[in-house]
Parts: sequence; structure tokens; C-alpha cells
Amino acid sequence: MAGRTIDDFGPWRKRLRHIIFDHNTPGSRGFDVVLLWLIALAVLATMLESVDGIRESYGRPLVIAEWVFTALFMIEYFMRLTVSLRPLKYATSFYGIIDLLAWIPAWIGLLLQSQSAHYLAVVRVLRILRIFRILKMMPLIAESDKLMRALRESRPKIFVFVFFVVTLVVILGSVMYVVEGPYNENFSSIPTSVYWAIITITTVGFGDITPITIGGKLITSVMVLIGYAIIAVPTGIVIGSMRETLRETRLATKAVSGRGCPGCGRDGHRDTARYCWHCGGELEGTPEAEG
Amino acid sequence: MAGRTIDDFGPWRKRLRHIIFDHNTPGSRGFDVVLLWLIALAVLATMLESVDGIRESYGRPLVIAEWVFTALFMIEYFMRLTVSLRPLKYATSFYGIIDLLAWIPAWIGLLLQSQSAHYLAVVRVLRILRIFRILKMMPLIAESDKLMRALRESRPKIFVFVFFVVTLVVILGSVMYVVEGPYNENFSSIPTSVYWAIITITTVGFGDITPITIGGKLITSVMVLIGYAIIAVPTGIVIGSMRETLRETRLATKAVSGRGCPGCGRDGHRDTARYCWHCGGELEGTPEAEG
Amino acid sequence: MAGRTIDDFGPWRKRLRHIIFDHNTPGSRGFDVVLLWLIALAVLATMLESVDGIRESYGRPLVIAEWVFTALFMIEYFMRLTVSLRPLKYATSFYGIIDLLAWIPAWIGLLLQSQSAHYLAVVRVLRILRIFRILKMMPLIAESDKLMRALRESRPKIFVFVFFVVTLVVILGSVMYVVEGPYNENFSSIPTSVYWAIITITTVGFGDITPITIGGKLITSVMVLIGYAIIAVPTGIVIGSMRETLRETRLATKAVSGRGCPGCGRDGHRDTARYCWHCGGELEGTPEAEG
Amino acid sequence: MAGRTIDDFGPWRKRLRHIIFDHNTPGSRGFDVVLLWLIALAVLATMLESVDGIRESYGRPLVIAEWVFTALFMIEYFMRLTVSLRPLKYATSFYGIIDLLAWIPAWIGLLLQSQSAHYLAVVRVLRILRIFRILKMMPLIAESDKLMRALRESRPKIFVFVFFVVTLVVILGSVMYVVEGPYNENFSSIPTSVYWAIITITTVGFGDITPITIGGKLITSVMVLIGYAIIAVPTGIVIGSMRETLRETRLATKAVSGRGCPGCGRDGHRDTARYCWHCGGELEGTPEAEG
Repeated sequence: MAGRTIDDFGPWRKRLRHIIFDHNTPGSRGFDVVLLWLIALAVLATMLESVDGIRESYGRPLVIAEWVFTALFMIEYFMRLTVSLRPLKYATSFYGIIDLLAWIPAWIGLLLQSQSAHYLAVVRVLRILRIFRILKMMPLIAESDKLMRALRESRPKIFVFVFFVVTLVVILGSVMYVVEGPYNENFSSIPTSVYWAIITITTVGFGDITPITIGGKLITSVMVLIGYAIIAVPTGIVIGSMRETLRETRLATKAVSGRGCPGCGRDGHRDTARYCWHCGGELEGTPEAEG
Repeated sequence: MAGRTIDDFGPWRKRLRHIIFDHNTPGSRGFDVVLLWLIALAVLATMLESVDGIRESYGRPLVIAEWVFTALFMIEYFMRLTVSLRPLKYATSFYGIIDLLAWIPAWIGLLLQSQSAHYLAVVRVLRILRIFRILKMMPLIAESDKLMRALRESRPKIFVFVFFVVTLVVILGSVMYVVEGPYNENFSSIPTSVYWAIITITTVGFGDITPITIGGKLITSVMVLIGYAIIAVPTGIVIGSMRETLRETRLATKAVSGRGCPGCGRDGHRDTARYCWHCGGELEGTPEAEG
Repeated sequence: MAGRTIDDFGPWRKRLRHIIFDHNTPGSRGFDVVLLWLIALAVLATMLESVDGIRESYGRPLVIAEWVFTALFMIEYFMRLTVSLRPLKYATSFYGIIDLLAWIPAWIGLLLQSQSAHYLAVVRVLRILRIFRILKMMPLIAESDKLMRALRESRPKIFVFVFFVVTLVVILGSVMYVVEGPYNENFSSIPTSVYWAIITITTVGFGDITPITIGGKLITSVMVLIGYAIIAVPTGIVIGSMRETLRETRLATKAVSGRGCPGCGRDGHRDTARYCWHCGGELEGTPEAEG
Repeated sequence: MAGRTIDDFGPWRKRLRHIIFDHNTPGSRGFDVVLLWLIALAVLATMLESVDGIRESYGRPLVIAEWVFTALFMIEYFMRLTVSLRPLKYATSFYGIIDLLAWIPAWIGLLLQSQSAHYLAVVRVLRILRIFRILKMMPLIAESDKLMRALRESRPKIFVFVFFVVTLVVILGSVMYVVEGPYNENFSSIPTSVYWAIITITTVGFGDITPITIGGKLITSVMVLIGYAIIAVPTGIVIGSMRETLRETRLATKAVSGRGCPGCGRDGHRDTARYCWHCGGELEGTPEAEG
């Protein structure tokens, strides 16, 4: 298990592995595109099946479609297991589990056959996560990686910020419970008041719970102005991180494309420069002669 | 069709072309201003006509006004066709189609004369898009271009971001369907729950659908805090792009306003450069000798 | 009128002018603070008077207070006229008109004595604008100026942006009118649908008007995701402008505090540097010896 | 009181002080973790106790838990007093008062035994503030400090901004009172209208108060577009401050990691500096001779 290598595979298995894991030949590209559509259709079917009217009218075709999707994802799963160099590691990885969840709930549903199975079937929408693996192969992933890196690097800042907001809403919710509670049954417990404070300070503002006393309205006014002011903080956090990431990328790029003057050693020349800006010596490697 | 030139036109047609396409003489300026007002009034009339009370009281004048607008836009359309060097290319261009939609729905409405024609007439509000062509001629366009370039360059980032949000709301909507569904008829299908998740995570929060169970409120609380944190991402994306655009503009400006090489005439030299980066000739006005 | 100078004033008038226009002696400071409180109290009184319950219980004292405020602001107005070098210019300036509106509505109300006078009296809340003149004298004004400059410089960008949003909501509102209109009386006219589109795309989301058809909900979902993405644009605009303003301020500050080396002429020394970083020559004007 | 030193303490008290105030040995770490959980559980218990259903079913265990928490926090408070070098200063400090409020309300509640005591007990949620002291000891504090410094430095800008928003909502609220008031009882007083204006311009939009007249809807539309545009200002303020803070931190870091003067030991030299800015001694490792 520890290390079967690709040479242990026969030609058919090698070819299969190539189609599944590579992404630069027509065969493997086609596989990606078909899989993308399968996933999108399967998720859509799951969503539509949950609508009462649609389930009643089109119940039969939806069940058939679901079993087709289940069969295909099952086949794909075992194909991946077969061509994987470390099947166990794949099966226990994040994407391995997602791949398993793409077809196993249908079988479990067969065993249960109850109302709760109806809700359990929702697990199938997790199939949407499988799309990320395919996207990973596309040029978009560079962008996606940058975003993810920015988010990951801001994690400690975001943690501190979320903790700060939680403290704020617990205190504000409790204050509203004291001020509004006796006159407004919507603020009759601290957890509900805290829920309201979260909905309000994030500017969602459902309106299912609203203050009715003058004191409550006054506190709410001050509170949303605070919320309005601190909305800048998470923005600032991520933007700051993204800038850092961007800067590093640019520096790295610069280093690669930067040329030093053979005469005086200075760098910082324009990409298209032919001569050193300091000593006038000729530079090497000018991309192409300009007139 | 391929290439009639401006010399093929008679003096009257040349003058008309001048009025329509140029924007720097009193005649053509006046044309732009009149057109701007015509479009604004026509859009306003369409909007007012849809109000029941107004249509009942002022139905007659509004119909007359609409036919006047239709006639004027039709005349303008044929004028543009007449003076265009490539009439077919114009007719099939984005603005050509918009110009056609400015007067053709009125005639189609005559043929249909039904309730659906009433709604089809709404196509006339697309006339508002015509304003963009006029704005294009104004100094504002520089700003507009910068904004558009920033948006265009962020497209891959925005695509990744939107896909990420869609995945998030599909999963969150499904979770809410499972948790709230059995107790709250507003969450009785996944599509409705996903709609609610979108309205909530973007902080719109209509309040037509709200969680009523404790579990649902808890999930909603976590979800809006997430929404609050990731609101920074699209902001960061566009700001990052705008900064890049700005920086490039500034560099370009600097190059223009800087010192030109007395030898080859090129500019874009570093502030402290002594020699031309292109021909190696000595530059004038280098701030001060270094060392 | 063209030019009476300060020398034409007697000592009493000079002193009055000093108190009103200067801001750095105890007398003029006291005047500012008293005026600040007067304005705040007058605005608060106007607001409270509009509450039915309060007007019924405390009508008499509020009327008396209002006449005291009116009298004081009237006296202040004529004092400003008296000590102004160009009374007519003051009277027709922005703050001159605000000062007039601070006491004249009370007298007009006497003449009208009707229900409409009740609403006309609201003009008195404009007194709040007078606070800005006092703030102008405080160190805060530097911040305020920077903010205002940033906003002013972004004006063309904001104009383009607002026009873009208006076009978007007119088109989206019309689409919703066509899609939702036949089934939902809240979308029964284009103006109402456009109002709804504005409330929705800015993420306010009152919830008084909401889509009920599947098509309407789908369009709304796409629309708020767009709104969520373009929220970054105005932010980027102002932040970009603020950065520019900040940069200019910093450059200006640097120029003022920068010292050149008497030996080699280089600058860019640290504020506390004693010796030139390039030639090692002693610098002049080091703030204070550090050990 | 002025200055008992740590040497006045016996070994047992020294050890206790070590556990409470240090954070780098297993003993003191364990103390921090236990305290963190105690606080979290105590706040959760207070929140749950306010829910009617839970208080009725689990009233007894919650009362017992509350007295356990009270006892533990009381013991901890006196321990801190005992090992403090300046007990009085601790008792009157911010955290000293928070520590006191963590256990004293329970005793006051015993004395009062009334309905108002029920609401007074809410003071116990302030215990959540105690978590900040523990967080302070963790690496997160660096982030937290940066955020706080950014917020603190933006204070004058935020003050100007909040004052600007307050002026805006007072005027807009009054206008809505005049326009909507006669037809819509929700706008029947200026304070209510101002409350609505705050809720609207911050994009919270509860929907409990909405305009019904055409004029009111028109004003609201303009107003939320303004709100949408100025939302950028607070964001810009904090981001600007965070960037400054970041830049300073980076400069400081650079100085620390840079070259020290072999003569006087000072650092903070420019990257290209040849001589120390303080003593004029020659520096080592200047990247390369200029010229």
C-alpha cells in the first residue's frame, strides 16, 4: 500500500489514470467537461426534487435521473480508487470523502425508506464541492489561490475581529433585553436579543424583530452607526492581505525579469531598455529591438 | 458594402455625418443635447405610462408623445444608416440594435394589440442605454473607461468569487432546508432556501422569509457573520484592480511629462537616469551627478 | 459697501468682531461653546416638539424655549451683520442664509398660524448646519477638509457610477415589472419596481415589496449578487482619492521638514539624523542631541 | 500601599502570582485555559437562564451553576488582590471593576429579590469582557493591537464622519416627516423619522417603517443611493489608518533587522547608507559603493 508506482499499472490503467488526472489532452479535457456537467445537473436535480410541486409531477424521471447520477459517480469513484497510487490515502482525503458522499446516500436512503431519509438525501448537494477539484485545473486557479492565500493569511485578524463582534453583540443583545424585554415579547430572552443584534449590526435587518420603545430605538440607532463604522475593519483586513500577496507576487516577477547592467551592476532598468540608465553601458537580453 | 469612403458622400450628407458623429462644434453639440433630453423624456414617459392612475388620466397625451418619440428615433435611425460608411456593420452592432429597439416595439405593438403587447412595450426602457453613447463623447468617459477597465481586469477574480458564493449559498440553503424545513413552511424547498440564503448573505434581508427555530437562528447568525467577513473580498478585488490601473496611468503620465532623449526622442526615463535607455545618448537635466 | 475696513469700527465693535470671528481667546472660545450648546438644544427642542405626546404635555415650555432660541439667534444674526466688513455679501452667503433661517420661520409661523405652518416650522432643524461653521475652527477641520477633498475629487467618478446604477435599476425594475407584474400587485408599475430595485441593490431590503414568482426570485438572486459585487466600486473610488490626498499631504510635509546635507547636498535623512548617510558630513538643524 | 515589592511575598504567594500573571509555564497556561472555559460557560448560563422555557425546566441546576461561578470568580478576585503589588490600583482599574462585577451582582440579587433584580442580573454577561485579558497574553494580541491602533488613530476622522451622518439623518428625517407625515402615521414625529433615516442609510432596512407616498419613495431612493456612495468613507478611513500602521510596523521591523552601527550600535539606517546617522562612523555592509 505504501508505494505502488505507476509502472505497476498495465497500459489500460495507465491510460485511465492519464484521462482522470491529467488536464491537457483532448481525452482528459473531455472527461473534465462531462464531469462538470454531470455534477451541475445532479445538484440541480436534487434542488428541484425538494420542491413539492415538481416532485409530484416529475417524481418518476427525477428518481431515475438520480440513480443514473449515483451509478456514474459510483463508477467514477471506483475508477479513481483503481488508478490511485495510494488508494487508502485517497479514500480518506477531503475529496475522497466528497466523492463517496456523491453516491452513498442513495444506497443508505434505500435502507431507511423514511421521512428522515428524505432530509438525509440533501447530503447530495455536497456534490457541488466536487466542482472545485475541476476548477483547480483551470487557469482560474491562480486567482483562486491568491484569494485563498489572502483569506488564510488574514485568519488571525479575522478571528480577533469575529471575537470582537461576538462580544459586542452579546453585550448589546443583553442591553436590549433589559431595555426592550419588559415591553416587547420579541426581546424576551438574551439569545433572541443577541440573534437580533447580529442581524442588525451586519446590516441584514430582516425586520421580524424590531425595537418599539424609545430607549430601544435610540440604542439601535447608535448601534447601527457603530456597525456602519466597523464594517470597514474586515474589508481592511482582507484588502491589506491581498495587497501583501500581490506585492510579493510582483516582486517575485520582477526578480525573474530584472537584468543587471554588466558595466556598473545597477538594476531597475525598464523591460525594454537597451542601455544602462547610470553608466550608459549596453544591456544584455533586451527582449526585441525597437526600431 | 466593404468600403464606401467619406468622399462618396455629397456635401449635405457630409454635413449630417459631421453633426451626428463629431462632438466639438455647436451643431453637433446641440444634436447631442437634444438627443439626451429626448431619450430621458421618452424613458420617463414609458415609466409613467405603466402607472395605472396616470395611464387612465393622461393616456391620450402619453400615446401621442410615444408616437412622436418613435417617429424621431426612427428618423434618427435612418439618418445614421444613411451617413454610415458601413451600414450593415452599424445595423448589427450593439448600439445599432439598441437604436432599432428604440422605435420598432411601437410598430410591433400595433400589430399585436393585446395585453402581452402592453408588457412587450417595456422594451422601450432600453432606450436608456443610448445615453451611454452620448456620455462616451464627454470628458467623463476617461473615468468611465478606467472603471470599466478595472471591472474587466477583475473578471476572472469576480468569476471565482461568484462561484464560491454560489457554492456557499447552495450548501447553506440545503442545511437550512433540513433544519428549518420541517417547522417552517417558508423553507419548504431547497430553491426557496437558497434564495433566502442569497438575500441574507448579501445583507439585503427582506424579511419575507425568516428562521423561527433555534437551530435555524443559530445557523443564520454564523452565516451572516461569514457574509460580513467575506464582503471584503469583492471590494478588495476591484480596489486592487483600480490601483493597478491607476498606477499604470500614472506611470504613463510620468513618461509623457518627463525628459525626452535629445538623441532619439524617447521618453520614459527614470528620474535619476543619466543616459537614454534606448540609444545610450546622454540625457539633459539629470537632477544631480551621483557620487 | 465695497470696502469698509476694520479701522472704521469703534473699540466696542472691534471687540465684538473679535469675539465672533476669532477662536483663540477665552472670550471667543466661550462664545463658540455657548453657541454650540444653543444650536444643539434648539434642534433637540424642534425634534421633540414634533412628537404628539410631548407637544401635548410640554407644549407651553417648548413654545417659550423656541421663542428664546429665536430671539438669541436673531440678536446673533444682527450682531454678525453689524461687525461684518461686507454685510450684503454675508447676508447672501450660504451661512448667512442658514443664519437667517434660524430665526425667521418663527415669525412667518406667526403670520400663517395654520397646519401647514406646523410643517414649515421644520425648517428650523436646518439650524444643525450652523454647527459646521463652529467645527471649522477646530483641529478637526483638517480631517474634515481631507474627507471633503477626497469626496470632491471623486465627483466625476461618482457621477459616472450613479448614472450606471440608475441605468441598471431602470432596466432591472422594468424586467421585474414584466415578470412579476401580472402576479404581484406590488410590482404593478415601473416606478414602483424601480424603487424596489434601488432598495434591493443597495442591500437596504425593506421587505415591503418582495418577489413571489419563481422567475422574480431568480432575477432578484442574480441582481443582489451583482449588487454585492459592484458595492466595491464606490468604495474603491473614494479610497483611491483619499490615498492620493494623503500622499500629497505626506509629500508636502516631507518637503517642509527635509534637510539637505551641506556637504554633498543629498536629502532623505531621518528626522533625528546628525550625519549624512552618504558622505558622513555633519548635518545642520538636528532637533535635539540624543545622548 | 505605594510600593510593596515582590520580595515582600512568601514563596506560596510568589508561586500564586506566577500562575496568575505569567503565561509561559504549564501551570499558568492551565490557569488561563480553565479561566477561559469558566467565563464562556458562565456567560452561556446567563444567556440560557433568560429563556423562559429553559428557566422553568432547568431553573434549579442553573441557580446552582451560577453560585459555583460566583464563588470561583470571588475566590479568583481575592487571589488577585492578594498577589497584586498595588491592590488599590488593581481594584479601581478597568479589569479590576470587571472582575468585581463578575461575582457581586449575585449577592446584590440576594438582597433585592425582585423582578428588577432579574434584569440587574444581566450585568453578569459583562464577564465576557474578561476574556480579553486572557487573549492579551496570546500571539493574537499583536493583531488585536494593530487593529486597535488603526481604530484609535482614525478617531478624529470617524468623529467627523459620524457627525456628518448625524446631520444628514436629522435633515433627511425632517424632510420625510414633512413629506410623509400627513399620510403615513409611521412618520408622525421627527425622532421616529430620524430613526428610520438611520436604519435606512446604513442599509439595515428593517421594513417596520416604509414610505408609502410617491414623494417619500423618491426621496428614499435618492437617499439610499447617497448612503451607498458614502459607505466608502468609513471604509477608506480605517483602511488608510491600517495601511499607515502597517507601514510603520514594517519600517520598524526593517530597522531592527537592518545593520547596526559598529560605533554607537544604533540601527534604523537607510538601505544605501554608508555612514551612521547618529555618530557618523562608517557602516559595514553597505550594498555597493555609489558611483
